[in-house]
Amino acid sequence: MFFASDNWAGAHPRIAERLSASAGGFSRAYGDGDLDRKVYERFGEIFEREVAVFFVATGTAANSLALAAYGKPGGISFGHREAHIIEDECGAPEFLSAGSRLCPVDGPLGRMDIRNLERAVGRFASENVHGGRPTAISMTQSTEVGTVYGLDDISAISAIARRHGVPLHMDGARFANALVSLDVSPAEMTWKRGVDIVSFGGTKNGCWCAEAIVMFDLDRAKEMHFLRKRSAQLFSKARFISAQFDAYFDGGLWLETARHANAMASRLAGVLDGSKVARLAWRPEANEVFAIIDRAAAARALEAGAAFYDWNVLAALAGQVGEGETLYRFVTSFATTTDEIGRLGDLLGR
Amino acid sequence: MFFASDNWAGAHPRIAERLSASAGGFSRAYGDGDLDRKVYERFGEIFEREVAVFFVATGTAANSLALAAYGKPGGISFGHREAHIIEDECGAPEFLSAGSRLCPVDGPLGRMDIRNLERAVGRFASENVHGGRPTAISMTQSTEVGTVYGLDDISAISAIARRHGVPLHMDGARFANALVSLDVSPAEMTWKRGVDIVSFGGTKNGCWCAEAIVMFDLDRAKEMHFLRKRSAQLFSKARFISAQFDAYFDGGLWLETARHANAMASRLAGVLDGSKVARLAWRPEANEVFAIIDRAAAARALEAGAAFYDWNVLAALAGQVGEGETLYRFVTSFATTTDEIGRLGDLLGR
Amino acid sequence: MFFASDNWAGAHPRIAERLSASAGGFSRAYGDGDLDRKVYERFGEIFEREVAVFFVATGTAANSLALAAYGKPGGISFGHREAHIIEDECGAPEFLSAGSRLCPVDGPLGRMDIRNLERAVGRFASENVHGGRPTAISMTQSTEVGTVYGLDDISAISAIARRHGVPLHMDGARFANALVSLDVSPAEMTWKRGVDIVSFGGTKNGCWCAEAIVMFDLDRAKEMHFLRKRSAQLFSKARFISAQFDAYFDGGLWLETARHANAMASRLAGVLDGSKVARLAWRPEANEVFAIIDRAAAARALEAGAAFYDWNVLAALAGQVGEGETLYRFVTSFATTTDEIGRLGDLLGR
Amino acid sequence: MFFASDNWAGAHPRIAERLSASAGGFSRAYGDGDLDRKVYERFGEIFEREVAVFFVATGTAANSLALAAYGKPGGISFGHREAHIIEDECGAPEFLSAGSRLCPVDGPLGRMDIRNLERAVGRFASENVHGGRPTAISMTQSTEVGTVYGLDDISAISAIARRHGVPLHMDGARFANALVSLDVSPAEMTWKRGVDIVSFGGTKNGCWCAEAIVMFDLDRAKEMHFLRKRSAQLFSKARFISAQFDAYFDGGLWLETARHANAMASRLAGVLDGSKVARLAWRPEANEVFAIIDRAAAARALEAGAAFYDWNVLAALAGQVGEGETLYRFVTSFATTTDEIGRLGDLLGR
Repeated sequence: MFFASDNWAGAHPRIAERLSASAGGFSRAYGDGDLDRKVYERFGEIFEREVAVFFVATGTAANSLALAAYGKPGGISFGHREAHIIEDECGAPEFLSAGSRLCPVDGPLGRMDIRNLERAVGRFASENVHGGRPTAISMTQSTEVGTVYGLDDISAISAIARRHGVPLHMDGARFANALVSLDVSPAEMTWKRGVDIVSFGGTKNGCWCAEAIVMFDLDRAKEMHFLRKRSAQLFSKARFISAQFDAYFDGGLWLETARHANAMASRLAGVLDGSKVARLAWRPEANEVFAIIDRAAAARALEAGAAFYDWNVLAALAGQVGEGETLYRFVTSFATTTDEIGRLGDLLGR
Repeated sequence: MFFASDNWAGAHPRIAERLSASAGGFSRAYGDGDLDRKVYERFGEIFEREVAVFFVATGTAANSLALAAYGKPGGISFGHREAHIIEDECGAPEFLSAGSRLCPVDGPLGRMDIRNLERAVGRFASENVHGGRPTAISMTQSTEVGTVYGLDDISAISAIARRHGVPLHMDGARFANALVSLDVSPAEMTWKRGVDIVSFGGTKNGCWCAEAIVMFDLDRAKEMHFLRKRSAQLFSKARFISAQFDAYFDGGLWLETARHANAMASRLAGVLDGSKVARLAWRPEANEVFAIIDRAAAARALEAGAAFYDWNVLAALAGQVGEGETLYRFVTSFATTTDEIGRLGDLLGR
Repeated sequence: MFFASDNWAGAHPRIAERLSASAGGFSRAYGDGDLDRKVYERFGEIFEREVAVFFVATGTAANSLALAAYGKPGGISFGHREAHIIEDECGAPEFLSAGSRLCPVDGPLGRMDIRNLERAVGRFASENVHGGRPTAISMTQSTEVGTVYGLDDISAISAIARRHGVPLHMDGARFANALVSLDVSPAEMTWKRGVDIVSFGGTKNGCWCAEAIVMFDLDRAKEMHFLRKRSAQLFSKARFISAQFDAYFDGGLWLETARHANAMASRLAGVLDGSKVARLAWRPEANEVFAIIDRAAAARALEAGAAFYDWNVLAALAGQVGEGETLYRFVTSFATTTDEIGRLGDLLGR
Repeated sequence: MFFASDNWAGAHPRIAERLSASAGGFSRAYGDGDLDRKVYERFGEIFEREVAVFFVATGTAANSLALAAYGKPGGISFGHREAHIIEDECGAPEFLSAGSRLCPVDGPLGRMDIRNLERAVGRFASENVHGGRPTAISMTQSTEVGTVYGLDDISAISAIARRHGVPLHMDGARFANALVSLDVSPAEMTWKRGVDIVSFGGTKNGCWCAEAIVMFDLDRAKEMHFLRKRSAQLFSKARFISAQFDAYFDGGLWLETARHANAMASRLAGVLDGSKVARLAWRPEANEVFAIIDRAAAARALEAGAAFYDWNVLAALAGQVGEGETLYRFVTSFATTTDEIGRLGDLLGR
């Protein structure tokens, strides 16, 4: 009954096998080997155009360096108030971009409200030296609360980015979960809608450690080589990342694992909503489920071995969480089983 | 015939197997799982005292954060002129420690000369605000040119560090190779001789990606949690590192692989020294061999598929490399075979 | 009719004279001269205890280095949403403290609301490595909107700071204006109420360029020498700052100029409030006056040579600024005359 | 007998007067006032082309931001081993350019040797991500040891800069002293010879505090506004700098003060060379004199009230400084008198 996070799972067997199979032999280091090059090309096929791919160690690194790639002195990046870059990265985006600032933008259910975003960016658009200037907009897909931006949402955000001359970054720590939720292609969800740079996460979806920055602006990508190395993010035996991505993409495994995780979230949502002690906070659109649960009942489940976290009550929910209740988050992954969900349901009482 | 670098090898079979075996099941993330804790304790056993262990993505990260842990505004770290931190890390040590400077110290065969070091550190010892102040001494063990500091060398360097109130850092990207070369214990080669913090590398010695910062000052280690996270170096599925180290230490595998690599270096040295077109630049003490070779002969070997790099001629060698000759580096690893060495020898002509 | 900012004025004649009088002769550089030392002691008398004084070039530098003095990796400083450090310093506080973040706290009329502050700081108090950790609270005295924190307000804020183990910084760009408004001593307004470090501004109150960081923690002050120099803020001919402060303090000139500025603000407030086209947004407590004015009338005054700025409408005022109206800011200084105020009143129509 | 440094002098009377005369009235802040604009134009006349001028607080700030203007991740700037940026700025150039490194270049008498420079830059010219890449060459004019680069020297250096695609920065803390020494125009000593950006110092030559960055690349200058503000170097009452430069340039005062300082250095050199206890280390070309003096005699002069510093013995002088002798530095300024020189001569014994 492990619903604490999708990073509590290990690696998918097919990914583990491919890694083992790649352990022998010699290969050029620092991402310049045959397998590395093959995987870069594979990314190009998946995104239906030439892309620049940079492996890094963590999603935080991908986000931070993506923002750094477009950073300027006095620069300000805009993201949802609950975005990972703002809430969970210990200042790495600011530090690794040498001091750029993050400006929180409000909006319901983890999605930036378009008018709030326009107002927030517009306030700094005059390039006044005191206030600073906009340098990027960052959106999280799927969001931190398990929702997904629709294609039109992405277009609306990228229109603001274009108008103010800044790039649009997509934090895709759960890229695949959003993709299969929308049932669109990677190209449609990114550059065809105006996304300039993507943090492409594989770790939460079945890899051990496979995070990549995907850039559509090949010219700007030249600087990323130095940005990455200077941040100590250049792996020597990069093929251990390539091997994971190779298996990840093979036969559409990545879509399969994401579909499974999302389906498990739907199932879990149904179970929770059917419980007398719980109700859904909102409908899940990817692989995270948020529910308001009787605190005593939740405590019993936790004690019985279930793993899930309570969550800060969002402003939007204020007033909806009763006394004796708490908001909890449940995350599913490629490794979640219907059996586990059933046992959790039993614990919480149907 | 792959002698370009020890990071051209993949992973040792026993490490690959253990990783696969660890792929299933759920575990707490961010280095807080059961296997992680077991491995931290294992480090303690190996170093014969309680230590704080921090996994990071690269050796550059380990070095940079080790120096950052002791960094101060205006701080200066001292290392050998050819040290990795000075020559090969693209400014990461300065960047990740927010601006500290590196001061090169000369010395023969990759080892800092004690008098040069004392003079270099002493020059800044007055804490003059203009010139800056010493904050760390960093030594590389084994060195960038395949030599090893003896225990007395380490004591002499740590005495300087103590006298000036700065810590001694050991860049142990090839820690195991030095250890088996000296045939001493990890404790003897580090804290018993005054080393305060170690970049403990497993990647070059048979792991995919296993680098750790080992700190003996547990109080100071508390800050490292934030330093590491802020530099985007905190792995979520940390157990994929733990699994590697677990196998690495098991049954002394790490010493075995290092002994093999060193033995292969000795064998290669013999082969090169017996060649008519080559001569050793100096005697290897770990797993790197440097030789002066007739350039045409080397070119033929490279064309035939051998992989090794030419090397900047060190000041100390000036005058010894003749016209038509070049200095080359050969690195051996757990994966090097006597057969490969034999074939290289054949190519160069015995 | 110059009400754009108190930094549009030049220097007070007595300060200009003292500077001229100090131009001859030789003196040790970098703040180590006789006059420098005399002025440091003078600061000690004014604050009624030994203090460490560091001259810097700008208020932004004072604020940034004050926060840097207490900075930590992953650190977060808290200030009012409209504070200068957050709104007007182009990321300097983050940059010069190597990446610490600023967290805005809301509250009416430029003063942080105590409960909001407690909640904001408390949220990060667990020292969770992902979210970061509190490192300072910064309050602006007088505030950006011309109000003043009372002594009890300061105590309440410093109580929060103590509880969370962080220092309290006071941005005193308009320190003197607040001081004479409260009619208390510098000691009462600072360390006796729990303030740890002060940005002590003289520039806006009659100096050319006289900003100092005043530290009450002498031990921590030792590091400031390096922080300041590393940020290129150490003046060589520091006595040109000392000469200004020397005259500034002499005979209580600084209190006199502040009282004059505040009195002119009161007078201006009366004139504006008596106008048919304007009304006070709130009662001024220092040397800044905010008024809601008929936009056409304001435009005529500006055209006729008056200088003042429109201001972002604060959340608190939403709904109070009618169509055809705008919120404007007027700042008075030592150089403001009753004549100027009268002429502005005439322009706006009594 | 004050020869410790040219920053021990105060301000020239004509500069002090102009500052006083500018104290009254109101003016736009942040360098946007009428006097500011007049002075910017004056710089243009002096350099015989349109230039971008940025006042900053210190020479260290000018140097650091000049390098930051051309900084890149992994960037390396080259300067003479004894350059101020390398020896005396506490890491500010690295810090304010977010981590760029400084590479020392040797050469006799404070001037970089052309072949050493070519070799040093060339070593990093391949844009290898590990080693970093060249981003600027910095030359000091006049040098730290009182010598001056000739016009052909500048051309030779800028040719290297051009060849490697990096800008040439001139640290002109003592710009005027070099200018009158060469008897050329500012244009001839800078952009006509390939200099791209200048740290233009007025402080050491008779101002209180007047340092400017002068940029010839107007497009790149746009970013400097943000770089300067983010480093807390934007003065609010900028006209106090403008007033100083206004007087500085008026009637060629700056050339007059520099000529005086240089002449005093020549005179002092003659006196020292004629002394039995002293001999010139080398011939002064600007306003600094270096002499090897009997240590006991020097001690007597210092005790009698003379102020001058002993100096690190440069590599080039090794062997020339006898037992019982020390190398000392004497700096002259606009305020140095023949009488003082005479008294020093008397003390040292002619």
